[in-house]
Amino acid sequence: MTAYAPFTAETLRARLADVPAVADRLGTDTAAWAVREVGDGNLNLVFVVESPQGALVVKQALPYVRLVGDSWPLPLARSFFEYNALIRHAARDPGRVPEVYHHDPDQALIVMRCLSPHVILRKSVIAGVEHPNLARDMGLFLARTLFRGSNLSLPAGQAKADLALFAGNVALADITENLVFSDPYFDAPMNRHTPGLEPWVARLRADRDLKVAAQAMKHAFVSKAETLVHGDLHSGSIMVTAEDTQVIDPEFALYGPFGFDIGMLLANFLLGYFAQGGHEAAPGARDGFRRWLLDVTRQTWEVFAAEFARLWRTERRGILYQSSLFEDQGDVLAAEQALQGVMAGIWADAMGFCGVEMHRRILGLAHVEDLESIADPARRMVAERRALALGRHLAVNRATITLDGLIATAERIEAEDLA
Amino acid sequence: MTAYAPFTAETLRARLADVPAVADRLGTDTAAWAVREVGDGNLNLVFVVESPQGALVVKQALPYVRLVGDSWPLPLARSFFEYNALIRHAARDPGRVPEVYHHDPDQALIVMRCLSPHVILRKSVIAGVEHPNLARDMGLFLARTLFRGSNLSLPAGQAKADLALFAGNVALADITENLVFSDPYFDAPMNRHTPGLEPWVARLRADRDLKVAAQAMKHAFVSKAETLVHGDLHSGSIMVTAEDTQVIDPEFALYGPFGFDIGMLLANFLLGYFAQGGHEAAPGARDGFRRWLLDVTRQTWEVFAAEFARLWRTERRGILYQSSLFEDQGDVLAAEQALQGVMAGIWADAMGFCGVEMHRRILGLAHVEDLESIADPARRMVAERRALALGRHLAVNRATITLDGLIATAERIEAEDLA
Repeated sequence: MTAYAPFTAETLRARLADVPAVADRLGTDTAAWAVREVGDGNLNLVFVVESPQGALVVKQALPYVRLVGDSWPLPLARSFFEYNALIRHAARDPGRVPEVYHHDPDQALIVMRCLSPHVILRKSVIAGVEHPNLARDMGLFLARTLFRGSNLSLPAGQAKADLALFAGNVALADITENLVFSDPYFDAPMNRHTPGLEPWVARLRADRDLKVAAQAMKHAFVSKAETLVHGDLHSGSIMVTAEDTQVIDPEFALYGPFGFDIGMLLANFLLGYFAQGGHEAAPGARDGFRRWLLDVTRQTWEVFAAEFARLWRTERRGILYQSSLFEDQGDVLAAEQALQGVMAGIWADAMGFCGVEMHRRILGLAHVEDLESIADPARRMVAERRALALGRHLAVNRATITLDGLIATAERIEAEDLA
Repeated sequence: MTAYAPFTAETLRARLADVPAVADRLGTDTAAWAVREVGDGNLNLVFVVESPQGALVVKQALPYVRLVGDSWPLPLARSFFEYNALIRHAARDPGRVPEVYHHDPDQALIVMRCLSPHVILRKSVIAGVEHPNLARDMGLFLARTLFRGSNLSLPAGQAKADLALFAGNVALADITENLVFSDPYFDAPMNRHTPGLEPWVARLRADRDLKVAAQAMKHAFVSKAETLVHGDLHSGSIMVTAEDTQVIDPEFALYGPFGFDIGMLLANFLLGYFAQGGHEAAPGARDGFRRWLLDVTRQTWEVFAAEFARLWRTERRGILYQSSLFEDQGDVLAAEQALQGVMAGIWADAMGFCGVEMHRRILGLAHVEDLESIADPARRMVAERRALALGRHLAVNRATITLDGLIATAERIEAEDLA
């Protein structure tokens, strides 16, 4: 056991020198290693360590929120939860998360594959760059990790042990509980929003149905321990190349609703959609990319639903909806009926979470670069107004809206500037 | 720490001799103590220890299911969960559970108040004896324990710690998961039912909507970690006098849905209702008591709902539906709207659990004395058919049935022998 201290490039070099998994990849000539800190997230230190032989990434948790500073302490144990989520994701959807080479919980350290030449998906969305495999990869990732982490798949004792383990991730759950579900809907101290947006902010904060819907989604987030969720699955937690997709940063992992990761991810696609007007060279120049983002939104759900159904039919070996009651009795349609009920619930939850995520990224503490990087406040405000309007529509109408309805409503809000 | 062994009257006397809390109540002249084993439940040893000075009860878990024998091992740790539930119940609804004097987790031992002259409620229901405070006491108990064990009330970290703690109660959860939600709906090895009931059993096991509903309720039981539930709240877990009501035996405690205990309890009232025809001296002789049981069913829910609403308005200090978003903004109706949404969900869940519990007590392993003690198999079968019919109706129609509808349907099934 080694005491915790935040690493510098030099102390990290010394720390890694005797880790066999590191030497395997970088060689033992530590003087030839180049170490640089590249973290641009909200919470952690991130180092890239390169040698003539190879490269790897070292992520170290800081005992506070990097975005805010040491006035906001945050437990180092999140590194332990991230590690535990990473190895489960790797087992449940092989190849979709970076391989872990080494983990030291005491130093809050994870040594893992260096993703190169990957870029953060959010940068691509802002730049208008398409990734043809994105929807397929993410739909499969969602279905496989969510199905295989649930009582549809795991032995009951293992699911309960994992539920208990991740219930320890209290501090990061608390961030989501407050920053996502509550702060955006009242005048919380850490909120901020684009100047000029006040009338729309006031309107949302006076919107009874919306606030009740947001709190119902918080109730679901806190109480519906259906599966291991990534917990922070936005376009900044996905790295891409032309062909590959990698999901990173599951330190917010916990047992939550099937629909949570799905809703968060679709929200970030839709935020990217409304942000395009702030990034295109001329009005309409990004229309093709807008269509692609809506296609990705649609296809991510469709791939998820198809893969979840495939797993339901072929891997349903947990304690829920046992085949002994359905297929083994010759009643295949009972299993399909149950699946459709479960899928309807997941969709409704996803729409609720999607709406709330769209709001908090505009009204709360943690904004998205898609919108923040729009230099002209007037154009930014237009994008934000529209995103707020769709978020409200989804959160309140989550039980009735369809996938077609979601896409059509996004398009109409954009085309007709609806609010 | 002391090694585990099942106590006899003599070894128990020696064990308790040096426990101060016992001496306080029984004195120190252990030779004057009378010790007798009185356990008649499915799982444990229960001793009454009396002295000229006082009395107490000692409950000790056995390492197997008493009802079945040592072929079915069951962890002693259930005593630890029972103790932890008892002290929480005592804090959340003072005076409604027996006071714990001593707990030894290694010996799976709980020393507690001797309830006297209390009798098991189920015996009263079979005998046709009314208890005027029953509905009030149980409605309040349900509201207070369920509200105060949830994220509506507890600090988030405490709720998560308790969730993780009770997630360890795997073996007892497994019993509920299998015996309540799955076994009754297929030809499971431990099932048994009254001979002659076969056509109705076959009909239920071929009933697609019912089986999907039962599995949806299992999904809710396993995934909806809303609050600390008693977990086994039937009329054998309640002891009564003319005035008093005591809730015992929470060894199945875990984090589950608000509606679970409510549904289980109402199911046992309704099983008692349909069983009356097997116990009355002449047809109609128990009509008054039948009405009382339906009144208790109605009033238990009404008292629960009123007290839950009172706590919602006065004690809602948890992370869900925070007043900062509602009342503090002057929008009291938003909080009422949210309450009504939560109550509708609790009611629907309760009806689903109620229906499933009615079935498993007739089709599964653990039956109820209300029905078992009907000597004439033909009369028993009539009662069971009717209970099965109501159970099916509730499970499938849980999202739409009202309290009035529940009572009216029970009455019509009884009056018109509906199936």
